[in-house]
Amino acid sequence: MQQRQNVAIIGSGAVGSYYGGRLAEAGHNVHFLVRRDYHAVTATGLNVTSPDGDFILPHPRIFNSSGEIGPVDWVICALKATSISDAHRLVKPCIGPGTRILVLMNGLGLEEHFADWFGAGSVFGGLAFTCINRAEPGHIHHLAYGTVTIGHFQDDPAELEAALSLWSGSKTRVISAPSLLRARWEKLCWNIPFSGLCVAAGGITTDRVMDNSGLNQAARHLMEEVMAAGNADLSHHQEKVSIDRAALVDSMFKRTSTMGAYKPSTLIDFVEGKAMEVEAIFAEPLRRALALGVTAPQLSLLTALLRSLNHR
Amino acid sequence: MQQRQNVAIIGSGAVGSYYGGRLAEAGHNVHFLVRRDYHAVTATGLNVTSPDGDFILPHPRIFNSSGEIGPVDWVICALKATSISDAHRLVKPCIGPGTRILVLMNGLGLEEHFADWFGAGSVFGGLAFTCINRAEPGHIHHLAYGTVTIGHFQDDPAELEAALSLWSGSKTRVISAPSLLRARWEKLCWNIPFSGLCVAAGGITTDRVMDNSGLNQAARHLMEEVMAAGNADLSHHQEKVSIDRAALVDSMFKRTSTMGAYKPSTLIDFVEGKAMEVEAIFAEPLRRALALGVTAPQLSLLTALLRSLNHR
Repeated sequence: MQQRQNVAIIGSGAVGSYYGGRLAEAGHNVHFLVRRDYHAVTATGLNVTSPDGDFILPHPRIFNSSGEIGPVDWVICALKATSISDAHRLVKPCIGPGTRILVLMNGLGLEEHFADWFGAGSVFGGLAFTCINRAEPGHIHHLAYGTVTIGHFQDDPAELEAALSLWSGSKTRVISAPSLLRARWEKLCWNIPFSGLCVAAGGITTDRVMDNSGLNQAARHLMEEVMAAGNADLSHHQEKVSIDRAALVDSMFKRTSTMGAYKPSTLIDFVEGKAMEVEAIFAEPLRRALALGVTAPQLSLLTALLRSLNHR
Repeated sequence: MQQRQNVAIIGSGAVGSYYGGRLAEAGHNVHFLVRRDYHAVTATGLNVTSPDGDFILPHPRIFNSSGEIGPVDWVICALKATSISDAHRLVKPCIGPGTRILVLMNGLGLEEHFADWFGAGSVFGGLAFTCINRAEPGHIHHLAYGTVTIGHFQDDPAELEAALSLWSGSKTRVISAPSLLRARWEKLCWNIPFSGLCVAAGGITTDRVMDNSGLNQAARHLMEEVMAAGNADLSHHQEKVSIDRAALVDSMFKRTSTMGAYKPSTLIDFVEGKAMEVEAIFAEPLRRALALGVTAPQLSLLTALLRSLNHR
């Protein structure tokens, strides 16, 4: 494996704890910023069950504040998108001259904030396709999938190599995205229809969206709206790539049909009465669509419904 | 008042009991087909509280089966639209040579069934704009509004006069609709956006739809889709009238802004876990829109969501 890196996990929820744990397991020097489970993790360590192999970190380096961690090689920001307003304050103390930042969060427009704060060249985006829950304090259940797609904010191939090598000795599979913006939009092409409909249709799993002809049709229509918005946004950002619409719809529906009763993270938030990441996953794509003259009537309606459901 | 008429109320829920009660109060000979509250009404009578005046019918004529009622002058069918498949069986025994039928139900396409079964000339549609709840058995709370708009299935002015005269001595205000089809669509122009969004946004009242900018905008967009579908349907039926789109939107929003925390009947069904009238209020208008080549993406999505919510 590559040289041992100092890593700070900002936001040690299910996703941050799991991927930070995998990096620690691979030998990196991982510091976890922990809020809720500090005492539990001190007592029991970090316990992970996973189809890729269970593991325990008996004494992970956990911290109550980022200031105690200080500058590191890599910051992995795994906050919920609903906490974006806390991100600058929490990440800043970990930034030194050469620090790189992986924004391992859901939704559109988040890397832009980090680029403004810390410089565009140091920012990466990570897209986790996975199913991870936090069970009792200090216990993480990784249930399925787990691949992380990583792109660089300026799509610099050398920087992207550096990001991939961080994970090279770990059990996490990483894929590089030549265009981060396209990767973000492609994930939204799945996330908006399926996460959105799972919630708005009353709290159902993806298989029920697939099996209901009206919802299945709505998923396709929403996906078309998102693809149109995404391609307009890519073109607006002068990217040379675009989303291959025909291929994407087929592959998304084919993949979803193999996922069974999958619960997107937005659905889990909804069912548990937690804040859903509506602004980053739905409202920002809608804002860009409308700004670029792309009509998106179903995305408009869905966003309005989800915002309302978020404030029940 | 006009001659005493024999009336059968088929479906003595809140709406049927209230309006039947008003006709009995006015001196008509009203027979109520009662299912759930038979014993309670026998014991306590029919008790109505209303801003238009409370009243009690101590010994209303109540029946367990339509066969015991037999042929009458007027059938008022106030079943829920979800029970349309029971309507023929329940109404048939009350039909004689001169029987007229007022379909006092929500949604589109219901009069067509009655016209097929009993002849188009005898069918009327009634659109109740009201807020009536059933409280304890035998007790009805009329809370607000109450006007009934009545149209004839073939828009025959003489027949329409006959329908209005039935109500002339009662405390119910009735308005005649020169075009029943336009009246149905105009009611849907309110009902689809406001009832639909109240439910799909998580079970909220109309004031919250009005006050939320995203939902308010969605209501306007949905109303535009319904108006476009309605005008296409009116033209398809060779009606000479159409919906005045600009005037309607303004008047609907103005009226809704005075309604406060209004609960549409579909919302009450949803909150109480009862079947919502999705097919008649949403799916049939959508079916007609699509058949006539009117695109209605928000109505499509809303209908799919409500169908799913109906089967939670």
